Amino acid sequence: MSSMTASALLKSRVRRPSMLGKLSKTSDLIDLFPNGASVGWSGFTGVGYPKKVPTALADHVEKNNLQGKLKFSLFVGASSGAETEIRWARLDMIERRSPHQVGKEIAKGINEGRIHFFDKHLSMFPVDLMYGYYTKDKPNKKLDVVIVEASAITEDGGIIPGASVGASPELTQMADKIIIEVNTAMPNFEGLHDITMTDLPPRRKPYLIMAPEDRIGTPHIPVDPEKVVALVESDYPDQTQGNAPEDDTSRAIAAHLIEFLKHEVSQDRLPKSLLPIQSGIGNIANAVVGGLAHGNNFDKLKVWTEVLQDSFLDLFDSGHLDFATATSIRFSPDGFKRFYDGWENYAALTVTGVSCIVPMCTHVDQTEHDLDVIVTEQGLADVRGLSPRERARVIINKTAHPDYNPILTDYFERAEYECLKKGCGHEPHMLWQSFKMHKELNDHGTMKIHNWDP
Amino acid sequence: MSSMTASALLKSRVRRPSMLGKLSKTSDLIDLFPNGASVGWSGFTGVGYPKKVPTALADHVEKNNLQGKLKFSLFVGASSGAETEIRWARLDMIERRSPHQVGKEIAKGINEGRIHFFDKHLSMFPVDLMYGYYTKDKPNKKLDVVIVEASAITEDGGIIPGASVGASPELTQMADKIIIEVNTAMPNFEGLHDITMTDLPPRRKPYLIMAPEDRIGTPHIPVDPEKVVALVESDYPDQTQGNAPEDDTSRAIAAHLIEFLKHEVSQDRLPKSLLPIQSGIGNIANAVVGGLAHGNNFDKLKVWTEVLQDSFLDLFDSGHLDFATATSIRFSPDGFKRFYDGWENYAALTVTGVSCIVPMCTHVDQTEHDLDVIVTEQGLADVRGLSPRERARVIINKTAHPDYNPILTDYFERAEYECLKKGCGHEPHMLWQSFKMHKELNDHGTMKIHNWDP
Repeated sequence: MSSMTASALLKSRVRRPSMLGKLSKTSDLIDLFPNGASVGWSGFTGVGYPKKVPTALADHVEKNNLQGKLKFSLFVGASSGAETEIRWARLDMIERRSPHQVGKEIAKGINEGRIHFFDKHLSMFPVDLMYGYYTKDKPNKKLDVVIVEASAITEDGGIIPGASVGASPELTQMADKIIIEVNTAMPNFEGLHDITMTDLPPRRKPYLIMAPEDRIGTPHIPVDPEKVVALVESDYPDQTQGNAPEDDTSRAIAAHLIEFLKHEVSQDRLPKSLLPIQSGIGNIANAVVGGLAHGNNFDKLKVWTEVLQDSFLDLFDSGHLDFATATSIRFSPDGFKRFYDGWENYAALTVTGVSCIVPMCTHVDQTEHDLDVIVTEQGLADVRGLSPRERARVIINKTAHPDYNPILTDYFERAEYECLKKGCGHEPHMLWQSFKMHKELNDHGTMKIHNWDP
Repeated sequence: MSSMTASALLKSRVRRPSMLGKLSKTSDLIDLFPNGASVGWSGFTGVGYPKKVPTALADHVEKNNLQGKLKFSLFVGASSGAETEIRWARLDMIERRSPHQVGKEIAKGINEGRIHFFDKHLSMFPVDLMYGYYTKDKPNKKLDVVIVEASAITEDGGIIPGASVGASPELTQMADKIIIEVNTAMPNFEGLHDITMTDLPPRRKPYLIMAPEDRIGTPHIPVDPEKVVALVESDYPDQTQGNAPEDDTSRAIAAHLIEFLKHEVSQDRLPKSLLPIQSGIGNIANAVVGGLAHGNNFDKLKVWTEVLQDSFLDLFDSGHLDFATATSIRFSPDGFKRFYDGWENYAALTVTGVSCIVPMCTHVDQTEHDLDVIVTEQGLADVRGLSPRERARVIINKTAHPDYNPILTDYFERAEYECLKKGCGHEPHMLWQSFKMHKELNDHGTMKIHNWDP
């Protein structure tokens, strides 16, 4: 590969001289990616992903008309950048994708059968990767190339990630070759991270974490420097979007949930600081976090979550948030500016769920056995300790839209009558009609059926 | 209550004198159980349950024709004894039951709508109980009476449980009144147990257990002695049944699974000692445990499981089992004899699952995201890292019965063709026909449909 000279800015970020000697042009790295290669990227929720090499590969495919001919198995902790991953999908460069997908182009590739998508708990993916489940059919049991974005490199060659950690520690551990993209267009995130490497049972030990602020790892990802085949300078920040604004629906859901949390505090089932909060993303989560910030119902909150969004900046500024930790900070462009400007003050919630209430779900990701409450814009159903028939009534009465309440009540009462009569009333159903609302939606664009006759 | 004299045997088991002063006749305890009371019992998988007081209450209902008029909310860690719980169900004495049910009489009560059954992960029930989810509508937030079987009582008034621990620590913690049944017809289990009490977040701490043999608790359940309102001597052992014998099907499933485990060991994804084994119960689990005992493919096994059954005695005796821990030891009558006779030598698996392969399940308890392999008597499907369509093919080809293979293949190929054509091929289904095999079974006693037409 051609020898390159590092800029002063790059030198200030890369404290290991031997790494600078591997500085490369992206155009010289194409041959590292043969068709069918297993490729890992850093990144999580659209931040901290590699930008230059994926773009160079996409340019190469576009320029040489290799669409559908140069395809990769792509492993990223969650989503990466729209301008890289979605472009790869559009150029038919993704043969296989785990454990996450987002974006219409990728969904299209999956639904058209061009992309094999394996959907796994994001929290279990890194460990399964270390177990070798994703590389068991590769001769060397390794991922061929892993591309990691760094905000700096330590004297030991350790990687200081940018705005996300995600599965990067495990991806680099399982890599045959590593390419590091040092992003000099963003601040150095040194000191923000707490990184543990994954060891496998029977050697794996418990994480001795008692509270969100506890630290047990290193500020960097340790890397075998001989695995690093190239270093690239990256010169533009994470391309995030603005946040979906709160609306009446998300505000109504949030209000029901805040009311429930206040009630639990008043009953001494939760402290006023609640318990470490985990939050999803989107406008409902933002509305809930906003609801926690307002007033003085809650105080000294702590957050242990997947992703921090803009609303957490408000929660910090409200004085009610003591500490937050996450595997990714995914702010809007304005939020990142606010975060970087207030870096000294910020050291960093979802209680989510809108449910379309139907007799039966076409797909189940979370089972009834894990369910405590359901919230919609209509209200909150507290189903703790209730039997399935009791649950159904509470869910319909508290959370279903008034237009659907009589339709769902009719289904439930008919199913209950028929099933109790037959002595199978534990979870009453009219199985052959259970998807009738879905069919009506498919056939006539509405779920408002007129009766439950077969 | 009337004063009673303790037998020498009872005195040898009860080392706290004040407890002996509470020795009572069961007939004097009936008034502690008003209609609608919340009642907790020790017991798990049909061992370690209270025998005398539940029987006295059933006698009282039978004698006074109180069926359906004296009903209780009943909380037991899992199943208790057939002669108590099932008799209560038969006498319509159970208003509500959590978190487990077993037996035809109870299922009948649930399906006829007389018993409200809340089905919860057995591992989460004790914590949710401590959170107050099951007592939130009671004025004192307590269970009214908890009856615990003990094999002995320490100087401090601590309870040494019998053959199960289950949810007894949490049930006694949440009790307003406690009745202890000291069972003198079974050995003293002192030294066998390792008991931790459940504290609630934010005070709860990690369990510092690295290996099955680690002990972190006390040999007894600490009890507030002033809560103990009565002590009863119990004079007959746990009434367990013999085990369902292995058959060709369970042996075939076990053989496929053992072959898979051998392969994982040969690929270095598992050590020859495997990892701590968790086992379900029943004849498939017994066949798998038997398969681990035979030959020299595995050695120095350790078990961390819910229930130990007879087959674990064989595994111990094979010399391949180093240590086993569980929350219950549920042996057959012969197994208990063998265990008690060899007490000094025994200081004890399920990798289970027979699946009726259908296009869609009517109920989901474990989601696809937790699934690594499926085993039936036909074979083992390794679905790790596979996309849903790849999974479906492997599952049909490896695990479906040959009679159903073409029917399921036809469903899948039609669904795949239709869904890919419409651009919704990620998890192809013909939703309106997805329960057609179930309907055929319901209508004609077979799942062998002739076509998938609506």
